[in-house]
Amino acid sequence: MRTPFPFTAIVGQDEMKLALLLVAVDARIGGVMVFGDRGTGKSTAARALAGLLPPIPVAQGCAYGCVPGASACPAPDRHTGRATTMPVPFIDLPLGATEDRVVGALDLEAALGRGEKAFEPGLLARAHRGFLYIDEINLLEDHLVDLLLDVAQSGENLVEREGLSVRHAARFVMVGSGNPEEGELRPQLLDRFGLSVEVCTPATIAERVEILKRCDAYDRDPTAFAAQWKRAEGKLRRAIAQGRDAVGAIEVPDMVLARAAKLCSSVGADGLRGELTLMRAARALAAYERAASVTASHLDRVAPMALRHRLRRNPLDETGSTARIERALGDLAA
Amino acid sequence: MRTPFPFTAIVGQDEMKLALLLVAVDARIGGVMVFGDRGTGKSTAARALAGLLPPIPVAQGCAYGCVPGASACPAPDRHTGRATTMPVPFIDLPLGATEDRVVGALDLEAALGRGEKAFEPGLLARAHRGFLYIDEINLLEDHLVDLLLDVAQSGENLVEREGLSVRHAARFVMVGSGNPEEGELRPQLLDRFGLSVEVCTPATIAERVEILKRCDAYDRDPTAFAAQWKRAEGKLRRAIAQGRDAVGAIEVPDMVLARAAKLCSSVGADGLRGELTLMRAARALAAYERAASVTASHLDRVAPMALRHRLRRNPLDETGSTARIERALGDLAA
Amino acid sequence: MRTPFPFTAIVGQDEMKLALLLVAVDARIGGVMVFGDRGTGKSTAARALAGLLPPIPVAQGCAYGCVPGASACPAPDRHTGRATTMPVPFIDLPLGATEDRVVGALDLEAALGRGEKAFEPGLLARAHRGFLYIDEINLLEDHLVDLLLDVAQSGENLVEREGLSVRHAARFVMVGSGNPEEGELRPQLLDRFGLSVEVCTPATIAERVEILKRCDAYDRDPTAFAAQWKRAEGKLRRAIAQGRDAVGAIEVPDMVLARAAKLCSSVGADGLRGELTLMRAARALAAYERAASVTASHLDRVAPMALRHRLRRNPLDETGSTARIERALGDLAA
Amino acid sequence: MRTPFPFTAIVGQDEMKLALLLVAVDARIGGVMVFGDRGTGKSTAARALAGLLPPIPVAQGCAYGCVPGASACPAPDRHTGRATTMPVPFIDLPLGATEDRVVGALDLEAALGRGEKAFEPGLLARAHRGFLYIDEINLLEDHLVDLLLDVAQSGENLVEREGLSVRHAARFVMVGSGNPEEGELRPQLLDRFGLSVEVCTPATIAERVEILKRCDAYDRDPTAFAAQWKRAEGKLRRAIAQGRDAVGAIEVPDMVLARAAKLCSSVGADGLRGELTLMRAARALAAYERAASVTASHLDRVAPMALRHRLRRNPLDETGSTARIERALGDLAA
Amino acid sequence: MRTPFPFTAIVGQDEMKLALLLVAVDARIGGVMVFGDRGTGKSTAARALAGLLPPIPVAQGCAYGCVPGASACPAPDRHTGRATTMPVPFIDLPLGATEDRVVGALDLEAALGRGEKAFEPGLLARAHRGFLYIDEINLLEDHLVDLLLDVAQSGENLVEREGLSVRHAARFVMVGSGNPEEGELRPQLLDRFGLSVEVCTPATIAERVEILKRCDAYDRDPTAFAAQWKRAEGKLRRAIAQGRDAVGAIEVPDMVLARAAKLCSSVGADGLRGELTLMRAARALAAYERAASVTASHLDRVAPMALRHRLRRNPLDETGSTARIERALGDLAA
Amino acid sequence: MRTPFPFTAIVGQDEMKLALLLVAVDARIGGVMVFGDRGTGKSTAARALAGLLPPIPVAQGCAYGCVPGASACPAPDRHTGRATTMPVPFIDLPLGATEDRVVGALDLEAALGRGEKAFEPGLLARAHRGFLYIDEINLLEDHLVDLLLDVAQSGENLVEREGLSVRHAARFVMVGSGNPEEGELRPQLLDRFGLSVEVCTPATIAERVEILKRCDAYDRDPTAFAAQWKRAEGKLRRAIAQGRDAVGAIEVPDMVLARAAKLCSSVGADGLRGELTLMRAARALAAYERAASVTASHLDRVAPMALRHRLRRNPLDETGSTARIERALGDLAA
Repeated sequence: MRTPFPFTAIVGQDEMKLALLLVAVDARIGGVMVFGDRGTGKSTAARALAGLLPPIPVAQGCAYGCVPGASACPAPDRHTGRATTMPVPFIDLPLGATEDRVVGALDLEAALGRGEKAFEPGLLARAHRGFLYIDEINLLEDHLVDLLLDVAQSGENLVEREGLSVRHAARFVMVGSGNPEEGELRPQLLDRFGLSVEVCTPATIAERVEILKRCDAYDRDPTAFAAQWKRAEGKLRRAIAQGRDAVGAIEVPDMVLARAAKLCSSVGADGLRGELTLMRAARALAAYERAASVTASHLDRVAPMALRHRLRRNPLDETGSTARIERALGDLAA
Repeated sequence: MRTPFPFTAIVGQDEMKLALLLVAVDARIGGVMVFGDRGTGKSTAARALAGLLPPIPVAQGCAYGCVPGASACPAPDRHTGRATTMPVPFIDLPLGATEDRVVGALDLEAALGRGEKAFEPGLLARAHRGFLYIDEINLLEDHLVDLLLDVAQSGENLVEREGLSVRHAARFVMVGSGNPEEGELRPQLLDRFGLSVEVCTPATIAERVEILKRCDAYDRDPTAFAAQWKRAEGKLRRAIAQGRDAVGAIEVPDMVLARAAKLCSSVGADGLRGELTLMRAARALAAYERAASVTASHLDRVAPMALRHRLRRNPLDETGSTARIERALGDLAA
Repeated sequence: MRTPFPFTAIVGQDEMKLALLLVAVDARIGGVMVFGDRGTGKSTAARALAGLLPPIPVAQGCAYGCVPGASACPAPDRHTGRATTMPVPFIDLPLGATEDRVVGALDLEAALGRGEKAFEPGLLARAHRGFLYIDEINLLEDHLVDLLLDVAQSGENLVEREGLSVRHAARFVMVGSGNPEEGELRPQLLDRFGLSVEVCTPATIAERVEILKRCDAYDRDPTAFAAQWKRAEGKLRRAIAQGRDAVGAIEVPDMVLARAAKLCSSVGADGLRGELTLMRAARALAAYERAASVTASHLDRVAPMALRHRLRRNPLDETGSTARIERALGDLAA
Repeated sequence: MRTPFPFTAIVGQDEMKLALLLVAVDARIGGVMVFGDRGTGKSTAARALAGLLPPIPVAQGCAYGCVPGASACPAPDRHTGRATTMPVPFIDLPLGATEDRVVGALDLEAALGRGEKAFEPGLLARAHRGFLYIDEINLLEDHLVDLLLDVAQSGENLVEREGLSVRHAARFVMVGSGNPEEGELRPQLLDRFGLSVEVCTPATIAERVEILKRCDAYDRDPTAFAAQWKRAEGKLRRAIAQGRDAVGAIEVPDMVLARAAKLCSSVGADGLRGELTLMRAARALAAYERAASVTASHLDRVAPMALRHRLRRNPLDETGSTARIERALGDLAA
Repeated sequence: MRTPFPFTAIVGQDEMKLALLLVAVDARIGGVMVFGDRGTGKSTAARALAGLLPPIPVAQGCAYGCVPGASACPAPDRHTGRATTMPVPFIDLPLGATEDRVVGALDLEAALGRGEKAFEPGLLARAHRGFLYIDEINLLEDHLVDLLLDVAQSGENLVEREGLSVRHAARFVMVGSGNPEEGELRPQLLDRFGLSVEVCTPATIAERVEILKRCDAYDRDPTAFAAQWKRAEGKLRRAIAQGRDAVGAIEVPDMVLARAAKLCSSVGADGLRGELTLMRAARALAAYERAASVTASHLDRVAPMALRHRLRRNPLDETGSTARIERALGDLAA
Repeated sequence: MRTPFPFTAIVGQDEMKLALLLVAVDARIGGVMVFGDRGTGKSTAARALAGLLPPIPVAQGCAYGCVPGASACPAPDRHTGRATTMPVPFIDLPLGATEDRVVGALDLEAALGRGEKAFEPGLLARAHRGFLYIDEINLLEDHLVDLLLDVAQSGENLVEREGLSVRHAARFVMVGSGNPEEGELRPQLLDRFGLSVEVCTPATIAERVEILKRCDAYDRDPTAFAAQWKRAEGKLRRAIAQGRDAVGAIEVPDMVLARAAKLCSSVGADGLRGELTLMRAARALAAYERAASVTASHLDRVAPMALRHRLRRNPLDETGSTARIERALGDLAA
C-alpha cells in the first residue's frame, strides 16, 4: 500500500475538507456527494482522510471487520480469540464491480468443493467502519446506488440471494463524486446523501503552481513528503478524536432547531431529512470547534452543504442553489 | 433488532395512521398505498404498527410461519411438536430482490448436496401474518407488483417454477409507497390496493421542531425513548385487539350499503372493489370505535382513503380526487 | 380448496354466463374472451362454472389427466390399473409462469438424480378436460397466447424442447380476460377465440347492494352460502348434461347455414371461423334448450358473442361491433 | 394421427392447389409462399397434399429419414438392415421452436449419461422428403427464415454448433403463410421462395355453405368423410406420379426460354431466379398435363405465381403485382 | 460433395472473375467485396474458383490444415507423419454461426469427459489456405466482420477466450457479398477489403437464355456438364499457376508507383491501403498476363476495383465512384 | 513472431513518434491517444517502438511478468529461482476480448479439475512493463475504457469477481487509436490520456512513393529490411536509455511551472491533469535531449500534444484545438 497523500497538504478545497471532517466526527450525518470536474483531487481528499484516522481494533480473522466481541457478527467464533488493529478501510468501488461482489455472495469454492452453502462477504463488509468511495456515481445503475444508500443509512447489509439470508453490520461513510454535466442522480437518491460540496479547479496561478510542486514532490518520494506533514496530521487527528468524544453531549437549543425548520421551509426542501442533517452537521461542527452548545452561526455555516442538493428546481428562479440558501439565511437574520 | 419507533410517537400524519389501524383490525380490507415525498416517515409508521401488535403463536421450525396445527402447511411434520411465539413479521422488500427470493425457489443446497428437489420459502412466506413493505413500488416491474397483489388478495402463494409446485398460506398486509412525480402504477394495480393515503411534509414550524426533537431523542437512545411511550402503546394495542374481536359481529345496514353504492356510482369508480372496500373499512372503523353498527358517518370518514385511487381521470374536471369524493358526499347528504 | 362461489348466485352478467354454458355444452366452440373492467367478477364466473360441473373419471396416477384407458397417453402403464374421479380442473395461469411450466419440461430431478430424460407435464396437462383461465391475457406475450390457442384448438400439446419430443392430449376451454383500454390482442389472436362477451359494472343501486350482500355473506361463511344455492346448482348441472347428450344429434338446416354465411359476409368477418362458430354455438344453444333443430332465432341470439371480435375496423363507421351485428341481423330479417 | 382433410374436398382456392401440385411434381421449383387472411384453409391444403402422396421407403431406424442405402447418411449402420415405409412427412413448425430443435443439437442424454458427443436430429431431419409448414412466417426472426431457406434450397442441413459438425440431407418443400397486413418478409427472403399464391375468403354464399357442410361432416366423422373422397384422391395421386416420371424428359424450346427472359426483363424482376422458376414451373405443368413439350401457354399460366413476389415496388405505378405481370404478358403476345 | 459449376462456364461478370483471378495469383491483395443483387451468381463464382485450383498438400490429421511440417502449428505431433492432399477449402459462413464456431472454442467433450482444456478449431481454421465466403456480409455484426478482417489481414487467428490462448495460421481469401440497398458496411470495414466489384443482372435476352440453358444442363447432370468445360478449366488453372510463380519477380517501376500515389491523392482515398492494393493488384495482373514489368496500363485496368470502395462521399459531386476514378485516370493521362 | 517494422524506417509522422519516445522515457506521462484515418501506420509505430526497446529481466515462470524479486507479486514462489529476460511486451487488445480475459479470471481448469480457486492472469498482466494497443478505442464500451485507464494510471490491477480478490502490478503504456469521425470518447476518458497526437495521410507524392517502396521491401523480406536499419535503431535505443537515466534529476524551474499553469488557465483546460502532464512531458523531452533543466521551449514544444484533448469546446470559437494552444503560447510570449 502506497503512503496516502496527507490530508493537511491538500491546497484549497475548504468546503470539501470541512464536509469530510464533519462526517468523521459524526458518521450519522450520512454520505458526502462531491460535485465537480475531474482532476480536482476528490478521491485524493477522501483517501487522505481515511489515512489520517487512527487504526481501529478488530477481531482477528473476522471477515466482517467487526468490533471485537460484536454480538451480531455472522462469524461469532472469530470473536472468542485475540483482537488486533487495522487501518480505517478505504474501499474504492471498482468500475464494473458486480452486485454479488458488492453485497457478497455464495462462496463457490465451499459450494463446489465441500457442498456447503457459505457466504462470502463483499465490498460492503470490507468498507465497514471506513469509507466507500464511488467515482462517477451518476454512471452507476440506479438500483445499485439505491442499494448502497440503503445499507449506508441502515448500517447493515441484508442479503437475500442464491438461497442465502445473511445480515451483517456495514456502517461506512459513502463518498460519491459526479460531474453534473454528465447526467444527474435522481432527486430521491441525492436526498439520501447527508452533505454535498462543490469543488473546482483552483483559480490563481500561485495556487496551481503550489499544487504542481506538492504533487511532484509526493510523486517522487511519498514517504519523505508525508514526513513533512506528520505534525499537522497529528494535530488534526486529535481534533477529530476530541470532536467525536464531545458530540454526544452537545445541546441543540430549541431556537436553533426552529431556525433549521424555518430555513428548510423557506427554501422548499421536501421532507425532514434536510432539518435532521442540518442539526447533526451543526452539532458536529460545534463539537469539532469545542463549543458547549450549537449556535445559529454553526447552523448557517453548514447550511449550504446540508441543503444544496435538496432544493426543488424553481423554473421561475434561475438563482443557483447555494445563492438561494444564502438569501434565505439573510432573510431569517433580518 | 433495533427497538422500533413507537407508533404513538409519530407526529401528525393522521390519515396514514388511521389506514394502518383499520387494516390491523380487518386485514381483508387489503393493502395500503402511501403517496408522498420521501423523508416523511412512511416506512417508520408501518414498521411501528408491526412493532405495536402482540406476538403471534407459531409452530416451532415451520419455515412458513403457520398458525400451529395449520392443516395446509407444506411442512406438516413441523406441526406435531411444540408451538412458540414470534413478533409480527415486518418484511422490507429489498431493492433488487429477485422473483425467486420473493416467491421461493428450489433449495440449491438440497438439490446439489442430496439430490432432492426441495422448496426453499421466500419473502412471501416470511411476511405471512405480518406486513410487507415496498418502498417506491412504482419502480418495481409491473409483473412483480401484480404477483404480489395476487398473493396478498388470495392469501396464498402458488409457485410453479423449476419443476416445483408448492402452495402455502401468505396472508399479509402490503404497504406500498410511491411518489406520484416519479411515474404511477397502472390503474389496474392501484385498484387492487384496499386503501390509499397521502402524506406530506408537516406545515408548521412547531410540528417540525417537535419531530426533530423526537427523532434526535430516539436516535440517541431508542430504548429510553420507547419507555416513555409504553403506556400509550399498550392502550392502542388493546383498542386494536378489541376491534378485531368485534368486527365479525358488526351489522352494515342496507341504507349504508346503498350509500356506498351511490357514492361509487356518483364518483365513477369502476367495478365493485370500491364498494366492498368502503363497507369493510367502515365496519372496521365502527368496530375500532366500539360502535354497535355502521353508520353513514363511518362510511364518509373512510371514503377518501377507500376511493381516492379508483377514480377515472376526468379531463374536463381538474378537481383532485379527494375533493371530488368530498363533493359527492356533500351531494348525497343534500 | 375453498368452496367456489355458486354459479347461480352471480347477479346479472347474463351474456357471460350464457357463453360459459354454451362452451360447457360443446367445447368445440372454442375459448371465451371476456372484455371488461376489473372487479366485475370475470374470474369468479369461470371458476364457478368449473365447480358446477360433475367430477370426471381419470386413471389413477396419470399425470396427464387422461380418460381411463386413453390410448394416446404418454404414460400408458398408468391406464392398466384402477380409475378414480377428480373435480373438473380449473387452472389459473399464474402471472410470470414460464413457458416451460406451461407446456411441460425436462424433469430435472430425474435428469440429475437418475440420469433419465423424463418429461414433467406442465399446466396444459393439468388443464386437460377443464378450464384454463388467463387474466389480462393482453399482457401476455403474443407467442405464448398463440401457443395456448394452438393447443386449445388442436386439443393436443406437442412439445419440442430440451431434446424432448412429447405429444399429449390437452383439451380445455380457454377463458381470457382483458381490458380493451390496456392494449388489445392482435386480430389474428382474437379471431381464434370462439366467443367473446362484454361485462360491465352493474348499473342499478339495487343490483350493486345485492352483490355487496352476497359477497359479504360468502366472505363470512362460504359453506353456509353455498348450501343456500345447492338446489339451483343441481338443476343447472342437469341441464348442461342434457345439452351435451343432445348436441350431437341436432340438425342445422341449410337455410340457417345460409343465414350464417350471409351474416358473416354482410358484417365483413374474414375467413370462415365466424360461420363455423356461429353454427356450433347456435347448435349448442338449441341442445341446451331442448330444441329438435337449430332455428334462425338460435343463430341470432348467439351472433353477437360469436362475431363481435371478428369484425374489421371500419373507419367510416363509428358504430360499435355489437350494433353493427344487430343492424346486419335486422337487414337480413327485413 | 387424425385422418387429414382430403385435398380434393377443398372448395375453391385453385391457385394454391395448383402451386402445391407443381412442387409435388418437381420439388426443385422451391417453396410456396401463401398470402392471405387467417381461417382460409392454408394449412389444411398443404397438410392434405402430404396426406395424398404415397408412402415413401425408408431405412428402418434411420433418424434422418433417408432413402434406404443412402450413401451420405450420418447413420450408415442403419442402412444395412431392412427397409420399411412411412407417410410423407408433414412438419408443422411449432411457434417458439428454438433453433436447436430446428437444426438439431447435442444429444444431452448421451452427453450427460455416457459422456458422448452425439447429434440429435431436429425438425429439418424430420421434414426430409416431405413438407415443412410455417404459419405466419413473417413473425419468425429473419435469421431463422434465412436458415430454413438455405437448407430448403441446398437440400442439406449443415450444423456447426456446440462443437458438432454434422451434414445430412434435408430436401423438403417449404410452405410459408403470411398476412401482408402484419408486416412483410424482406424482398431477399421472398425472392427465395419458388412460388407465391394469394388466397381469400370465398365470395359466394353457396360456396361458404358448402364449406361449412364439409367442415361439419369432417368434424363429426373424419374417417367416413375421407371415404367419400377416396376415389378422387386416388386419381389425383396417380396424376402426380405420372407428372414426376415425365418431367425429366420434357423439352423447353428456346422460344419459351426467350419469352421467360423477356417477361422477367419487362416486369423488372432482379436476378435470374425468376426465369429459372418460370422454366421449372412451366415444365412441371406440362408434365402434369401430359404435354410433350412446354408451350408459351404453360409459361403464361404459371407466370403470376412464379413472379408476383419478385417485382420491385414501382412508386409511380400503383397497379398490383398480378396485374403488372398480366399486362406484360399481354404486351409480349401483341 | 456436388461437382461445382465450372468457373469458365460463367456467362459475363468479367470484373468479378478478374478480381477472383488476381487474388488467386497473389492472396496478399486481400479479400474481395462483391456488390449486387441476389441471384446473380456471386457465390457460384467464388465456389467455382476454389474448385478450379489444384489440391493442396496437408499433414494428415492436422485439424488446422497446415502445410506439412509447418513449424507454428498448435498440433506439432501431426506433422511428423505422412502428408496427404485436400481440395482448396471453400467455407461458406452459415447464417447464425456463432463466434465460438468461427474462431474455435473449448472442446467440451474433452473438458467434460477427460477434464482437459483442449481447443477445438473453428471455421477460420477450416478456411486456412482457401476461401471464406460470407453472403450478405452487411447483415453480420460489425464486431464479427472486424474480427474476420483482422484475421484475414494478419494471416493468423489469435484466440483469447474461456481461459484458452491459441494462435494458429489462418490465411484465406475472404469474399463478401452485399446489397447496398440493405445497408452498408462502415467505411473502415470496406477499406480493409482489397478489391470490390459490382455485378448486375445480365442485360441482353440472349445472355439470359444462355445462362438459363447452362443452369438447366448443370442441374440435370453436373458431372456431364463439367466434362464439357474440362479443357477450358485446365487452361485457366495453368495460367494461374504460372502467374503465382512469376509474381515475386515482377518489377514495379517508380513511375508506376508515382502514378498510383497521384491517382489515390487525386480521388481522395484516405490512408495508404489504396496505393498498396493498386500496386499489388497491378503486379498480379502483369504476372498473370506474363508481362515482365508492371505498366501504367496494368494499373489503370485494376484501379476501379482497387479504389472504388475507398472514396469519400463528396456531397457536391454526385458522380459514382467508378466514374470518378475513370475521370481521374483521364486527367493523369492528359 | 514476425520481425517488427523498424521504428526509424517510419516515414514522417514526427509528432506521433515524439509522443511515443517521451512516454518511453517517462511512463508516468500516461497513455497516448492517436487520432487519424485508418491505414496511416498507427499500430505499426507503437509496435515498432516496443520492438526497439531492450529486453527486460523477469522472474522465470512468473505469469505476471514481474521484476525478479518483486515483493507484491501474487506468485511469490516464482521469485526465489532464476531470472531471465523477455522482449518488452506489446499486447494488441483483440476485438471482442471479454472483460474476463482482460482483467483475468477464475482458472476453470484448476476449478473443475482440482477443485481449487486459482486466478488466471489476463491481458493486463501480459501487458505489464510494456504496451497495450487498442485499435478504434472509441468502439470499446465506456466501462472497459474506464477500467483500462484506471489500471494504467494506478499501475495495479485489482480484481473483484467470481469470488476472487487479486491485486497485481500492471504498469504499461496504453496507446489508443480512434477516428474522430466515428464517434468520440467522452471528455472524461480523453482527459485521462497523457498525450494525444494527430496523424494524417502523407501529403507529397514523393513521401507516398517512399512509403510504398519501404512497405513492399519489408513485405518481401522483413529480416533483410530490418538489417538495413539496425544501426539507426541502436542509436535511438541508447538515446532513450540515457533519457530514462537522466529524467529523475532534471529540475523544473518555478518560472516554467508558472508558464504551464498560465497556459492551462488561458486555454481553459479543466482540472490539474493538463499542468501535471505538461511538466512531465517537458521534463522527459529535456532529459531525452540531454538538457540540464527544463526551459520554456521544452514546454512549448510538448504543449499541443499534452493539452489538445483537454480543451472545452468553445461554441463561439471555431478555431481548432492546436491553433488555440499555439495562439495562447504566442500571447504568453508577447
